[in-house]
Amino acid sequence: MSKYFNRRNIDFLLYEVFDVMSLGKYDYFKRQKKDTYDLIVDSAAQLAEKELRPYFVEMDRKEPQFEGGKVKVHPQVRNLMKEFGEGGWISADGSTEFGGQQLPLTLTSCTQFIFGAANYSASVFPFLSAGAARLLSKFGTDKLKSEYIPKLYSGEWQGTMAMTEPQAGSSLGDITTSADPLDDEGTVYKISGQKIYISAGDHDGVDNVVHLMLARIKGAPIGTKGLSLFVVPQKRYNEKGQPIDNNVVTSGIFHKMGYKGAPIVQLEFGGGEGCFGFLVGKPNHGLAHMFQMMNEARIAVGLSAASIASAAYYASLEYANERPQGRTLDNKEAVNPQSLIIEHADVKRMLLFQKSIVEGSQSLLMQCAYYADMAKAEKEASQEIFKLVLDLLTPVAKSFPSEMGIHSTSAAIQIFGGAGYCQDFPVEQYFREMRIHTIHEGTTGIHALDLLGRKIVMGGGIAFRAFTEEVTKVIKKSKLEITALSRYGTQLDDVLFRLQNITMKLSTQAMNEKKDVFLADATAYLELFGIVAIGWQWLMQANIAQKGLEANPEDKFYQSKLHTMRYYFEYELPKSEGLITRLNSSDHVTLEADSKTIL
Amino acid sequence: MSKYFNRRNIDFLLYEVFDVMSLGKYDYFKRQKKDTYDLIVDSAAQLAEKELRPYFVEMDRKEPQFEGGKVKVHPQVRNLMKEFGEGGWISADGSTEFGGQQLPLTLTSCTQFIFGAANYSASVFPFLSAGAARLLSKFGTDKLKSEYIPKLYSGEWQGTMAMTEPQAGSSLGDITTSADPLDDEGTVYKISGQKIYISAGDHDGVDNVVHLMLARIKGAPIGTKGLSLFVVPQKRYNEKGQPIDNNVVTSGIFHKMGYKGAPIVQLEFGGGEGCFGFLVGKPNHGLAHMFQMMNEARIAVGLSAASIASAAYYASLEYANERPQGRTLDNKEAVNPQSLIIEHADVKRMLLFQKSIVEGSQSLLMQCAYYADMAKAEKEASQEIFKLVLDLLTPVAKSFPSEMGIHSTSAAIQIFGGAGYCQDFPVEQYFREMRIHTIHEGTTGIHALDLLGRKIVMGGGIAFRAFTEEVTKVIKKSKLEITALSRYGTQLDDVLFRLQNITMKLSTQAMNEKKDVFLADATAYLELFGIVAIGWQWLMQANIAQKGLEANPEDKFYQSKLHTMRYYFEYELPKSEGLITRLNSSDHVTLEADSKTIL
Repeated sequence: MSKYFNRRNIDFLLYEVFDVMSLGKYDYFKRQKKDTYDLIVDSAAQLAEKELRPYFVEMDRKEPQFEGGKVKVHPQVRNLMKEFGEGGWISADGSTEFGGQQLPLTLTSCTQFIFGAANYSASVFPFLSAGAARLLSKFGTDKLKSEYIPKLYSGEWQGTMAMTEPQAGSSLGDITTSADPLDDEGTVYKISGQKIYISAGDHDGVDNVVHLMLARIKGAPIGTKGLSLFVVPQKRYNEKGQPIDNNVVTSGIFHKMGYKGAPIVQLEFGGGEGCFGFLVGKPNHGLAHMFQMMNEARIAVGLSAASIASAAYYASLEYANERPQGRTLDNKEAVNPQSLIIEHADVKRMLLFQKSIVEGSQSLLMQCAYYADMAKAEKEASQEIFKLVLDLLTPVAKSFPSEMGIHSTSAAIQIFGGAGYCQDFPVEQYFREMRIHTIHEGTTGIHALDLLGRKIVMGGGIAFRAFTEEVTKVIKKSKLEITALSRYGTQLDDVLFRLQNITMKLSTQAMNEKKDVFLADATAYLELFGIVAIGWQWLMQANIAQKGLEANPEDKFYQSKLHTMRYYFEYELPKSEGLITRLNSSDHVTLEADSKTIL
Repeated sequence: MSKYFNRRNIDFLLYEVFDVMSLGKYDYFKRQKKDTYDLIVDSAAQLAEKELRPYFVEMDRKEPQFEGGKVKVHPQVRNLMKEFGEGGWISADGSTEFGGQQLPLTLTSCTQFIFGAANYSASVFPFLSAGAARLLSKFGTDKLKSEYIPKLYSGEWQGTMAMTEPQAGSSLGDITTSADPLDDEGTVYKISGQKIYISAGDHDGVDNVVHLMLARIKGAPIGTKGLSLFVVPQKRYNEKGQPIDNNVVTSGIFHKMGYKGAPIVQLEFGGGEGCFGFLVGKPNHGLAHMFQMMNEARIAVGLSAASIASAAYYASLEYANERPQGRTLDNKEAVNPQSLIIEHADVKRMLLFQKSIVEGSQSLLMQCAYYADMAKAEKEASQEIFKLVLDLLTPVAKSFPSEMGIHSTSAAIQIFGGAGYCQDFPVEQYFREMRIHTIHEGTTGIHALDLLGRKIVMGGGIAFRAFTEEVTKVIKKSKLEITALSRYGTQLDDVLFRLQNITMKLSTQAMNEKKDVFLADATAYLELFGIVAIGWQWLMQANIAQKGLEANPEDKFYQSKLHTMRYYFEYELPKSEGLITRLNSSDHVTLEADSKTIL
């Protein structure tokens, strides 16, 4: 068995860094025990090894086909949906009220990480069903809940998130799929329109596909304020409770560079006979409702990116430990056997780089999951601050692992050399599967605008202040309590200070200058923010590892944590400098680039 | 016809920046005329459009197959080899003495750029034959020359570069393929061994494949000093002049992530009957001879990377000009039509980024070609300085476009959004084809060691001094003669100064400290060097564009040049800062990472 994730690191994050057991003091999580949690992580690892990992390559090479109007996926999809359903993996973090297990997201982030590392494409099917069920449990009528949630949880039906249309990708306000009321209560609608790029939007691994879809009720306002959320199944029940066709027609499949195991499809709604959609939540509140699913999906995208990078890291680490090539400087003579490539400084650099990205990202994502759990568990008055920081961090936690994941999986290929470019090894597939993550669930550019244009300025900067307080806590701990790490505390403090200044400068611009100037370098700002956020997570991990090392000086895991943190502060954190220079410049290069003459 | 390169930019570099016509004053290039050069570039563009471009996608989807011991490639390969042969493209920069046309590399770099942009995989076949012919013309016996060069030039035979073995990739000194003398003159040898990853190493688009191969004559010293160069054909002539099988057996083909149109194969030599190899040049001087071909191949790798990035840039530019999505801040109302995505600041940024990488790299590669031409044309005494700077720049010119090309083609995908990840558009293929370039012809890590460990320190730093003089000339011109650009001159001067300091520090370490410390961050040094070298090229281009603009203030091409330079100096040059911080640090993070405990 090749390693694709680090179990010890999961335990470290789960119990030492984020102390998931402390959630047990809240009513919402009160039934939880450490033994159960350990067992859940063990079971996830076994399930991944049995149902996901063996099909990783095959699902890429034999990609889904569109035949006779239906999408055929790898036969294993049906098995895995059954296993994930029966094992309770789809219902894991759902509320117990509707048959879920109410596990903390802090925990299920770990199991999702394992599934993504084992076989990203395969992990998407159950994940999407869980999201659809969660959305229904929150906003659906009792009838919808009882009809759909058990089937989604059991893995018999597939859930999806159906938003994108040919003319409406980043710009959801331009969605035109329409919903015509069919009853007086406003519950059933006739849907017509077209959706594209719908992940798992049709396949033969389940008995029904259930779309959680955005559409516009006839007469609704234009823009995002006129979008409503519907559940639109492939098959619906007629009055006699028999399943009948709901006129959702699959019109095509897209062939992708990677992430091939999961089909993304084009769907036509209501072309011939009537296609029924059932309203979920309040009319014209669809986007706000959908954001429930989208925000968790965004965290999940970051998590998947980090998990793929983890798998690539361990593949390249294994290779570096086995492949002899060249000689280190203390072994120069050609008569000597070659050195293992892991002994070359540049290979070590590429390994430490990957490790710093993988474990830094994973920690930030667990941090987000922890905030989400706290927001769920705490009493209303105390929830707000967790929600705010989570909202602020979501675009960062989605984008940093996705963007840096490209470089990280690329480094894995580089360690393999020519072999890494060939299909004999898995790293080229990781590189291809990674590339979707800066795009789906909102491109990096969209998240940058979300961070700077919305999250930073909201409530007069309250979320940003809360974030800096969180970071400062960790810095203080390093500076005051842990001598060995105080220099890193100082280093991060300095970059944080510069981020604060830039944030202040930009916020002032938002008020005084034209908004286009304020937002022009949002992506550079997001990148800088990500570097600081991951620095924060590394310092937090280092604080704990340093204490652990005091108790057990020979512990290799802690030693490695500290060394990787050191790498991050020496090689990655300095990348902030160029970004800071750029963000402090007043030369509006991009805005002034006339699209007709310059480009 | 979709655009994949910029003809005006080729003319600009060819005639304005590098003044290729000035080479006419040298005997070697004396027959050349501007009309001829224009015609050559025009013909290359036509040839690319007719013989390469239409097969770009098809050669990727229908990749070469290994059937019955033979490699079958796309049928167009035979046509294009014929066209390239008959049109004189394979012999273009070969010496007239052996039927070549003695065109300057400064010119053929442009035609090669066009071919690479049109269809990289296809462009490799004739390119490899040209390299093999060049090597034979330099080191081959008259008999070998007359037997092989005409067939290679005509496109009937395929040339290759056969070095890599399973245990010897980056480490060529470990090559074990052996050569046993078969005659007393030491011209014919019996070859036995195995080679892998041989590009175009076998295919049915030609009548014979001719390997320029490194092997070890029995009894030769171990390491690189015992390698000799041979020509080993698939078919050789017997005493009667009839072609007979030479026992070169293709044992497999590798399936790659991209660059699929060109097969890379595994070859067995001399398994059954004797396999003959003919010595080229001096025994045990094979690697030095091969470097002739390798150095040009390295420049060509940089050129191909830049050309693929060019094609991806124009694809994304076209899409950005056609795709409406979202609204700019001055067009916020949802009732209004959507804006074209080229109007979004972040899309402009990604376009300027690509343009700065493509045209900056292209300029550096033309600079190298120009040095190569001068080294060929000048009298012996004056050649040396051109050779030195060319040697110094080769690893940079190979690595910068290859490394940054990954980011550049990735930006092209990002502009397309989800569509860019699908095979309906060409950008995902560019991204896949790009990824080989940091690997083949020496990985980035190997080039970094070459730059810092060899080129920087050679001759007491003479090449580095010559390089800084070249850069300083351009800086001075900006600062003294072109007011509008003086601030950029100052900015580059500052970074150059810091590069000099770091170079001095490292050179001192090379003498005083352990060599492993000196070389540990060679890759970061190479990256910094690349940023400075491209800054130099941008300033040089800007100097000329600024003067051109004074004569013709409305010229959009010059305006765009200056704006893209400005982008580079605002967004890319500052990336030097983090690297400088790292290179000035004395924390040996990578060296101290114990492979057993830390990784």
